This record gives sequence, structure tokens and C-alpha cells, in this order.
Amino acid sequence: VSPPDLARLSLNQATTQRWTLREAVDGCVRAGIPWIGPWRDKVAEVGGAAASAKLIRDAGLRVSSLCRGGFFPAATESARRERIDENRRALDEAAELGTEVLVLVCGPAPDRDIDAARRMVEDGIAALIPYAAERGVRLAIEPLHPVFAGDRSVIVTLAQANALMERLDSPHVGVAVDVYHVWWDPEVYAQIARASGRILGFHISDWLAPPPDVLLGRGMMGDGVIQLQRLRAAVEAAGYTGPIEVEIFNQKIWDTPGDQVLATIRERYPEC
Amino acid sequence: VSPPDLARLSLNQATTQRWTLREAVDGCVRAGIPWIGPWRDKVAEVGGAAASAKLIRDAGLRVSSLCRGGFFPAATESARRERIDENRRALDEAAELGTEVLVLVCGPAPDRDIDAARRMVEDGIAALIPYAAERGVRLAIEPLHPVFAGDRSVIVTLAQANALMERLDSPHVGVAVDVYHVWWDPEVYAQIARASGRILGFHISDWLAPPPDVLLGRGMMGDGVIQLQRLRAAVEAAGYTGPIEVEIFNQKIWDTPGDQVLATIRERYPEC
Repeated sequence: VSPPDLARLSLNQATTQRWTLREAVDGCVRAGIPWIGPWRDKVAEVGGAAASAKLIRDAGLRVSSLCRGGFFPAATESARRERIDENRRALDEAAELGTEVLVLVCGPAPDRDIDAARRMVEDGIAALIPYAAERGVRLAIEPLHPVFAGDRSVIVTLAQANALMERLDSPHVGVAVDVYHVWWDPEVYAQIARASGRILGFHISDWLAPPPDVLLGRGMMGDGVIQLQRLRAAVEAAGYTGPIEVEIFNQKIWDTPGDQVLATIRERYPEC
Repeated sequence: VSPPDLARLSLNQATTQRWTLREAVDGCVRAGIPWIGPWRDKVAEVGGAAASAKLIRDAGLRVSSLCRGGFFPAATESARRERIDENRRALDEAAELGTEVLVLVCGPAPDRDIDAARRMVEDGIAALIPYAAERGVRLAIEPLHPVFAGDRSVIVTLAQANALMERLDSPHVGVAVDVYHVWWDPEVYAQIARASGRILGFHISDWLAPPPDVLLGRGMMGDGVIQLQRLRAAVEAAGYTGPIEVEIFNQKIWDTPGDQVLATIRERYPEC
């Protein structure tokens, strides 16, 4: 049994990129981390969702979310349909893994028309809702930091994710709050409050100043400038009591032995 | 005399980082670019504002703006006073250079308290207004891309800059719109309209996808994903008819001979 203060802690598998799912599961068990957030490529690598689910369950861990669905915009109607089919497979995997949450990274525009891409995101999520309901999985719209607006997501603020969620108006759609993506936003606390009761995930890391790299420069909690305690308090005031995923894309951390990374996470997590 | 279609074109000196002010002025003359936006360090390098003003005037160029003032937040009251004094010197230089516009990069938080830093920015600009009025120079609040929130500016959206401008409520305070910093924002067109009549500068470049670097990865117009014509039309609909500065921080462009860079700018500018 984990010490109570780690009860909500989850290792998002992106943090230990070099570990297979089995290695990450074993690492969590050794570190007393009760949750894991797997990635689809890592799930595929060990034989798919059923095998992964067994591996995780047998170790006594639970799945906080599956990363990731999304990437809705595409240049043609048929390509957009393929993206939706791919998202249906992701929903199948999430259900099989026993998690209620599929995280959506919504995708970039196929060209310069960012408004059209935003409509494609909305249409794509709308098209997925019936199947999400059928599989008992919820779609967590994750706004990404605007630095990713050109290549990963045209959904870049929590205000935008909230508005999208409100228009889609389904119990199967919510938002994910990742501190790295939203910390800079003058509206972040108002928007967290607006999302009350519909926050499906909370991801932590830190923002290094200056950032050493766009994609692989996230920091360990406590090493950067994000007001982590304040954001966590806001998310909790908005009713979120679920797992807290540590998701750190950072080459140096990837190059550090996994057990050492998990030890640092254990140490930093309670103070942040 | 420049061809009419270049009449509003300005070279922001950051684009040709390796050139001295004299070299940049000569380059503009050769390329038929009628405006220049100097940086304070480059002005100092050639002997200060009076010498720079003469050099620019003798070449028949005009100064679109001076980069940059700002950096208001600091850990102590006395350090904040020093920053304001430094901004007063920047206003003196802008006046001497014959430009009405000092661009403000507002500065990062000295610690994790981003709200406090935002108040320091507001207090700092408020403290500068009387001297700006005296010198006949206007303060252009430039929201920076949120990727710079940790190390360069706590003012990261045009909505925030507009709100600040509205609260300060002075004819000597406006905003600068740089496409690189604002293109991703779902609110950008509404906020450009909100800034009507108070836009003091328009800067162009492009957003490469994915960005090769945080600071030095800006693109030449046409090489990225920004809807440049649409943004320019919006800024013009909001009443801005002043110079259009090309400001590209990019190591590869810095490593390219300046005349070649200016030739590309001349070629790309009309279509964007």
C-alpha cells in the first residue's frame, strides 16, 4: 500500500520515455506510485491494450488516462474520417485499459487556415461522442501551450477548451489541465473555475526560464516558475479529486535512470 | 525615392543582428527600404542617439520605433526605480532619434509571483507616462508570445495589453502588434479591433512549424503558418497606417549576408 500522500500520484509514461510499459509499471511499484498514464505507442509495443491492462492490473496499479487521441484536422474529408476511426480505436484501448479518460491533443491546421482547423476539431470531437458514450470513456480536451499552435494543437487556451466543451455539451466531454500548457494565461484561474466539475485530468511539471528547448525542455516540479500549489488548489476548488499525472518531456530526464527520476518525483510531489 | 509599395516597410534591426547601425542604414538605402527600427544597444555602439539620428537622417531614412524599453518587474523597490530611470533614458533616445514610439517588452517576474509582476508592469508604465508626454513619445505595450512568459514578459496576450492600456487611459500609451507573438490567439481579431486607433506598431515575420528554436527560430514571411495578409488587413481596419517592421530573430538569417536578407524581405513583403 502506498503512503497516503502519494495516493493521487500518477506517472505519465512520457516522463520515462526510454522505459517500456512493463519497465514503467515495475518502476511505479518500486516507487509506490499507484497510478500510471500510458501512451498508445507504448501500449502497442507490449502487445496492445488487453496485454497492457493485464500487466498493469497484475501489478496492482490503476490507469489514470490514456494518451492520446485527437489530431482531428486534415486536408481532406477522407483523411478526417480516418482520424476519427483512429480515435475510435483509442477509445477501445482506453476502455480495455480500464480508464475513463482519453486525453485529446487536438492537432494542428493542415494549412494556414487556423479557424477552419478549429472547426474540424469541434466536428471531430462531436463525431466521437456517441462512441465515447458507448465505451464509457470521456474525452479530455487538453489545451496545449501556444508554442505548439503550429504543429500540435490549434486549441491553445483553457478558455477555448471550455467554450468547445460547453458547445458540445456532453457528459462525455471535459478538459484536461496541464500546468505547463496553461500557467502563463492571465485567465487561467477564472477558466479553471469555469471548468468546475468537468476537469478530467491534472498534469504537472514545471516551466524552466528560459526554456532550454521547445518540446523537450519541461522541468521537474520545483525547478521552474510555475505556481504549482496555487494551480493545484484552484483545480481542487473546481472539484477535481482524481489522479495527478507527472508528465515531463525533457531529454535530460529521459537520459536519467528511471528509478532516479521516480525518486525525485516522489520527493518533489508533496511540496508542490 | 522608394517604389510606392515599399513606402511603409521598415527594417527592425534585430533582423540583421550582425550589422552595425551604419551598415543597416546603408543596407536599407541600397534596398530602397525607407524606415528603420533601431535597437538601443546598436545605437549606443555608434556613439548614442544624437550620432545615430544624424546617421539615419543623413541617409534619408526615418525611424519607425525604438526597441526597447520595459523590463519593469524587479525584486526590490530600488531596482524597480532603476528600471524606470532606464526607461526614461530610452524615452530620451527615442525623442532624439525622431520616433514617436518606444516599444515595451514588459519583463518577466523576479520570482514565481506572476500577478505581482503584472502589477509592477502597470505601475512602471504609469510612472513613465508624464515623462513620455514631456518627450512626445508614446509607449507601445507589446504582448509577447506566451513562450516568453518565464523570461521576457508577463504580458502575453493582446487582451491583456489592451486592458492595461485602457486602465492607464493615456494618449501616450498604445499597443504594438507583432504577428509572431499573437497569431495563435483565438481572440486576436477581436482584440485588434478593440485596439482601434491605439495601435502604435505592426511587426511581421512568420511562425515556422515546428519552430526550430524558441528565441532564434522566427521565419521569413511566407515560410511559416501565419495568416499575414489577414492580420495586416485587421490591423489596417483598426486604423493603423504606419510603418510595418520586419523583425526576425533567426540564427540562419543572421548568418546570411545582410543584403541578401533585405532582398528577400523586399520580395516577400508585397505578397504578405
